[in-house]
Amino acid sequence: MKEIIRVTRQYRFCAAHRLHTDALPDDVNRKVFGKCNNPNGHGHNYTVFVTVTGEPDAVTGEVTDIEALDRLVTGKIVERFDHRHLNHDPAFRQLVTTGENLARVIWDELVNAVPAGRLDKVGLRETRDNYFEYRDTPPS
Amino acid sequence: MKEIIRVTRQYRFCAAHRLHTDALPDDVNRKVFGKCNNPNGHGHNYTVFVTVTGEPDAVTGEVTDIEALDRLVTGKIVERFDHRHLNHDPAFRQLVTTGENLARVIWDELVNAVPAGRLDKVGLRETRDNYFEYRDTPPS
Amino acid sequence: MKEIIRVTRQYRFCAAHRLHTDALPDDVNRKVFGKCNNPNGHGHNYTVFVTVTGEPDAVTGEVTDIEALDRLVTGKIVERFDHRHLNHDPAFRQLVTTGENLARVIWDELVNAVPAGRLDKVGLRETRDNYFEYRDTPPS
Amino acid sequence: MKEIIRVTRQYRFCAAHRLHTDALPDDVNRKVFGKCNNPNGHGHNYTVFVTVTGEPDAVTGEVTDIEALDRLVTGKIVERFDHRHLNHDPAFRQLVTTGENLARVIWDELVNAVPAGRLDKVGLRETRDNYFEYRDTPPS
Amino acid sequence: MKEIIRVTRQYRFCAAHRLHTDALPDDVNRKVFGKCNNPNGHGHNYTVFVTVTGEPDAVTGEVTDIEALDRLVTGKIVERFDHRHLNHDPAFRQLVTTGENLARVIWDELVNAVPAGRLDKVGLRETRDNYFEYRDTPPS
Amino acid sequence: MKEIIRVTRQYRFCAAHRLHTDALPDDVNRKVFGKCNNPNGHGHNYTVFVTVTGEPDAVTGEVTDIEALDRLVTGKIVERFDHRHLNHDPAFRQLVTTGENLARVIWDELVNAVPAGRLDKVGLRETRDNYFEYRDTPPS
Repeated sequence: MKEIIRVTRQYRFCAAHRLHTDALPDDVNRKVFGKCNNPNGHGHNYTVFVTVTGEPDAVTGEVTDIEALDRLVTGKIVERFDHRHLNHDPAFRQLVTTGENLARVIWDELVNAVPAGRLDKVGLRETRDNYFEYRDTPPS
Repeated sequence: MKEIIRVTRQYRFCAAHRLHTDALPDDVNRKVFGKCNNPNGHGHNYTVFVTVTGEPDAVTGEVTDIEALDRLVTGKIVERFDHRHLNHDPAFRQLVTTGENLARVIWDELVNAVPAGRLDKVGLRETRDNYFEYRDTPPS
Repeated sequence: MKEIIRVTRQYRFCAAHRLHTDALPDDVNRKVFGKCNNPNGHGHNYTVFVTVTGEPDAVTGEVTDIEALDRLVTGKIVERFDHRHLNHDPAFRQLVTTGENLARVIWDELVNAVPAGRLDKVGLRETRDNYFEYRDTPPS
Repeated sequence: MKEIIRVTRQYRFCAAHRLHTDALPDDVNRKVFGKCNNPNGHGHNYTVFVTVTGEPDAVTGEVTDIEALDRLVTGKIVERFDHRHLNHDPAFRQLVTTGENLARVIWDELVNAVPAGRLDKVGLRETRDNYFEYRDTPPS
Repeated sequence: MKEIIRVTRQYRFCAAHRLHTDALPDDVNRKVFGKCNNPNGHGHNYTVFVTVTGEPDAVTGEVTDIEALDRLVTGKIVERFDHRHLNHDPAFRQLVTTGENLARVIWDELVNAVPAGRLDKVGLRETRDNYFEYRDTPPS
Repeated sequence: MKEIIRVTRQYRFCAAHRLHTDALPDDVNRKVFGKCNNPNGHGHNYTVFVTVTGEPDAVTGEVTDIEALDRLVTGKIVERFDHRHLNHDPAFRQLVTTGENLARVIWDELVNAVPAGRLDKVGLRETRDNYFEYRDTPPS
């Protein structure tokens, strides 16, 4: 057996978005995305859950440096998306601003930058009832 | 002593908004509203708390007809604001879309339409940490 | 100006109930109470909020003896209603088991028994979106 | 490495139940199930978490059609159990209405009906402190 | 009738404390405060709710300057108590670190310093089930 | 495919702690642990999530005896840590009281004592934003 320790930190940002793709005609956008396609956009209080896994340091008992993780996620994610309109972000020029895609964009920003340990998953709560999660399967 | 019973129901909508007023120059808007003035807007998961007070009916034991209250608030508030941009709503042509003003707009829509009992207060949670409440003082 | 301190404790019980009164014909019960009148009953995880107000003791800094309050509410409310069917409780022989009536029944049980301070209000959360509150107006 | 995206939606219903099996004598029922075996039943505010996994659609960026998922779960689960007594449901003629069995019943209703993607797990919160989860292991 | 608008902001700090007073012998401390009197102290994640009331500004629609309020509460309360032991704070040299007294200490720090509007109440959540509130009655 | 059922119960305790190790000089402690190294300690409302997995009993429909699990966790974990200072616990004589180490200590206490089923994971919420999880990988 092998121990697995996970540490999860929560972060928050408030943003506007609109589900819409130029690859589809307007009536199909409307049909596929429903009210999320309303023309002037809407918005959410997003919560991001960043999970790091690894061995705790033998001396400090910590898997990762949480202050460094906070600086990373605040700098790369919170300051970029907080009080912004997601559809204006360069990452979403070709991508619809669904929770699935947003979780993936956050993953890509963080996966090679975690201060210690390995990024295990990125969770994203969009509304009280909607939650998205992105992870890679561990290498075999 | 006089009994006071209050019934509170929660409702939810997701909307975009931007704090900005044409009555002030851009740099003052920026200074007063900070990041809430960012040009493309942002958004929130709003929760509305509608509180009705009154005497429970002697037979049914209820202060108000909750199904009728749900129809009222859904029709007048949720369907109007959900998945919309608040700054495009006619109520906010002259008003900044602050939580204070939004709570007041909701109060004005409901105060004379509650099915039974008296509207006691309207609460509005904008983010996890921000809450607004509007009420009239009871007549003396 | 006069200081007001309030202390609120939460308690919980899980119970079944059915909104129904023999004072009305079945079809009116169905119309008034909707699905809450379904024949075999349903149930909730109830949360009770007991608020006591008073002057903190000059030496201990406490408004009331919280351990004594816990014994009171556990003995008189939680053990009586937890994992029970409210319609079988003697208090509801003539009363419909609405949140309004249940909050009042709890108030009546506690109002003269609070260990120190004065009972200020009884709150009752029935579902995530339904909250009831009972209080007396302070004597003038 | 292979990407895994999960989408989780929450649903709610309020129901009564009683833990009891005719396969055991009354005193053993009482001993095994404790207060959950109280004769007139009790109830809960249940929350159901439905998790779907799959590849996001290349154009829409969505793993599944959430409106279709909502119709499915509302029709098959919420309308069936909300404001009902679980012990009267045909699924529980031979099964005790434990959280374990209820999660399994919900899984069986949904597993072959998810609009797109694959059902990954069904979570069920029965009380603030009790949570059940059912999943199949992925095929090897 | 007179409008009342309230704005509530939440703040958080984590602190240790021990309920104990030198004015009472050890065995009475033990009896009065129970496990909260345990010799090495314990701790909580405290949440502070600061409520300000007033007229919204006619142009900005805001009751108070929330950024200024944040600076005030962060400077006077959060930085002072976060990751500290309350019994070592000068305010508690003569006072027991009960929730009642802590709410009062926070009130006294803020009441004359709110940027606009009037301090209406200070709430303090100590544990999931314990909540304290301090307010002055409005002048007559 | 093989069914997996998980049952999770929540438990709570309030405790003080201080992140500090005698294996490092004071200034390094300060640098590594930041404000968590403040000399007089601080504290938290901890929540423990105990997850047990297994086959539901064919007659009772339960994976484990929840009352027995409650007695186990209350006796071994809650009564030991509640209203205590973690740094004074024998388990932390050589270990820093990080969430990682605390989750591991709880795991070790429970792993061979679960009444039925197998301990699957131990979760630990330290603050609103910090969560730790310990599990062993299943034997292959």
